[in-house]
Amino acid sequence: MNTDSAFTPSPSPSTETLDAADPLRQFRDAFILPPGVIYLDGNSLGARPRGALEIAQRVIEQEWGHDLIRSWNTAGWFDLPSRLGNKLARLIGAGDDEVVITDTISINLFKVLAGALKMRPGRQVIVSERENFPTDLYMAQGLAQLLEQGHRLVLIDSHDELTHVLDKQVAVVMLTHVNYRTGAMWDMASATAKVHDCGALMLWDLAHSAGAVEVDLHAAEADFAVGCTYKYLNGGPGSPAFVYVNSRWIGELQQPLNGWWGHAAPFVFDPEYRPAADIRRTLCGTQGIVSMAMIEPGLDLMHEATMTALRKKSVALTSRFIEQVEARCAGLGLSLATPREPALRGSQVSFVHEHGYAVMQALIARGVIGDYREPGILRFGFAPLYVRFQDVDAAAEALREILAGKLWDRPKFTTLNAVT
Amino acid sequence: MNTDSAFTPSPSPSTETLDAADPLRQFRDAFILPPGVIYLDGNSLGARPRGALEIAQRVIEQEWGHDLIRSWNTAGWFDLPSRLGNKLARLIGAGDDEVVITDTISINLFKVLAGALKMRPGRQVIVSERENFPTDLYMAQGLAQLLEQGHRLVLIDSHDELTHVLDKQVAVVMLTHVNYRTGAMWDMASATAKVHDCGALMLWDLAHSAGAVEVDLHAAEADFAVGCTYKYLNGGPGSPAFVYVNSRWIGELQQPLNGWWGHAAPFVFDPEYRPAADIRRTLCGTQGIVSMAMIEPGLDLMHEATMTALRKKSVALTSRFIEQVEARCAGLGLSLATPREPALRGSQVSFVHEHGYAVMQALIARGVIGDYREPGILRFGFAPLYVRFQDVDAAAEALREILAGKLWDRPKFTTLNAVT
Repeated sequence: MNTDSAFTPSPSPSTETLDAADPLRQFRDAFILPPGVIYLDGNSLGARPRGALEIAQRVIEQEWGHDLIRSWNTAGWFDLPSRLGNKLARLIGAGDDEVVITDTISINLFKVLAGALKMRPGRQVIVSERENFPTDLYMAQGLAQLLEQGHRLVLIDSHDELTHVLDKQVAVVMLTHVNYRTGAMWDMASATAKVHDCGALMLWDLAHSAGAVEVDLHAAEADFAVGCTYKYLNGGPGSPAFVYVNSRWIGELQQPLNGWWGHAAPFVFDPEYRPAADIRRTLCGTQGIVSMAMIEPGLDLMHEATMTALRKKSVALTSRFIEQVEARCAGLGLSLATPREPALRGSQVSFVHEHGYAVMQALIARGVIGDYREPGILRFGFAPLYVRFQDVDAAAEALREILAGKLWDRPKFTTLNAVT
Repeated sequence: MNTDSAFTPSPSPSTETLDAADPLRQFRDAFILPPGVIYLDGNSLGARPRGALEIAQRVIEQEWGHDLIRSWNTAGWFDLPSRLGNKLARLIGAGDDEVVITDTISINLFKVLAGALKMRPGRQVIVSERENFPTDLYMAQGLAQLLEQGHRLVLIDSHDELTHVLDKQVAVVMLTHVNYRTGAMWDMASATAKVHDCGALMLWDLAHSAGAVEVDLHAAEADFAVGCTYKYLNGGPGSPAFVYVNSRWIGELQQPLNGWWGHAAPFVFDPEYRPAADIRRTLCGTQGIVSMAMIEPGLDLMHEATMTALRKKSVALTSRFIEQVEARCAGLGLSLATPREPALRGSQVSFVHEHGYAVMQALIARGVIGDYREPGILRFGFAPLYVRFQDVDAAAEALREILAGKLWDRPKFTTLNAVT
């Protein structure tokens, strides 16, 4: 057997049955996927919806090339952050005019974190997790250093620790709903309630949640949220991020990045800043229109599929992957890093292996694309719109072959796995 | 005569001669321009280089669609801010590793302004112009409010006033090199020297300068600069902005928007922020790759044309426009708002008219696209890569016909002129 050859999934009646019965099976056709690839990295960069290219062509040829400056109005460029934000809001349990698409997660986090600190004067603690995606911690560190007002970042090491650190010094708690390494998911409503009990504000990072799990920001009474559109929402490389502000706080939020797009009357060119009365006060400068416009087809597909159906399939995919890997790779040095209980995890499964980096390179070399995170973590994301049950079994089998044959020292090419 | 019909430039030996002798004449073919339009709004949204669509298609089809996550490395996505930044640097008199393309002007201004204040502790004044583009003032106001350290914004009303407000309280002076309304241009070297004499730092906004006039940041010893790529650089709607930090300050600059792209080792996922040793410390979060990649053809065209040749033609175009408008429209209520002396203006000409808004609508309705700025300002930008001398005369004649016939009450359609 030539173990370096392209991987061919073995015919499996079981996955055939599952795929045939999958109510979301037709959505795979809405995406362009390269042949010979099993793509389990949609939690880093989502695959390309067919509609994205057409939108980019329309924006570039017609709107930019032909209509030029007039497109700010005639093509609705200026309203894109709000219009797409409202579309995204309904996928995460937010209301109209509570979400805009703009800037990056990091920048949006800075806006609401700075605003939240102003809303809790006298409280100097920002709580987060040591295992949070680092950029969230960096932004908080940068803000605290900038302010020079004694704010400090307190990091917890487990979900259980949250209750222990909550006191009247805490201004805001900033958590990533689904952990980027392990896939562990917070109980959003329960954590938010605890945070509110101590009088603090709750800020959720939905980078690995939006489009992956059912999120209900309103039901959880979440105060603020940020997230990205290029993972499970399939918006394209580096497509702009989003920010959510609960409507009860809109009037109170003073975010410091006061750009003209956030002004109450941006075309009056008033030298004094007056924030817009609504969520648009979280906008700042002119946005990259092509990268933003391409977010729409991914959002539309999500709405068509419904988050309930997506989550149901996601749980089935991740459960089967755990089961298949553990069955096929028993004794081959893997340990599960993701919660076994479906309610406690997002749409990814991570395993730890001593030679994790090299094993992932070997997997990628045979067309099974997941990614690697220190220390030793093989990370597999399951985007229910385009991942099939047959992909799950095939990926598990590829992993078995590599581990059983110790084939991880022969990668065909390398990847750096550049994005969260 | 049907004054509503599309405008046809009259044959003019004089402009024919000028266009035939124009060493940049062939560059017009590198752009897509709609038929029947004279586009004098490249200072708001530059026209589309032919190469932009091809780049977007490659990024979307091959890099995103086919190569997926691997493109962060194989297609050089992660290095785009630096690679394109270095290309842009040579157009504005900056060196390698002094410029990156990222985020928006507003966000970049916040980074360097906040960093500059930290470098001048004890000094609490930010100087700017009342006539600066408002978002620059808003960002400074937002920063001062956030800091709560008594910083204040002092606004001057003329170039001459600069010397009067400079004292040991001034931390940083923030000026837009070419004014967005009038086109008036600061003497960069002389203003910077004055600012340095009082021990303050100098931050230039090059929104209406980059790609429009010769800028030499090094010769002027400028400390910081920001600018956009979607005007004279023709990067596309809302394409990402740039930030320049003089290499002498790179090690000292503590900018507060500490995202993971600015980390010394972004893939180590260290919970502590350590800024990159070089200009990359001004980066923050993941960038919109399609909108960024499309900047390149515009930059390449600028390099091919050279800024010296561009400026020479720009001065000839703006001088002729002033001359033609004043000759044809004498007594029709226009007054020049732009400095008459070429060395004192950028690549735009503005005239004030009592019915400015309606006059601009009438011009646009007959295919002469400029834009309008309060109060009463008709603004015409001359992008030397694609504007011809025949366009100059034709625009002046269209303006005459509208004013002489009082045709401004019959616009065919309206535009809001959304972007600076």
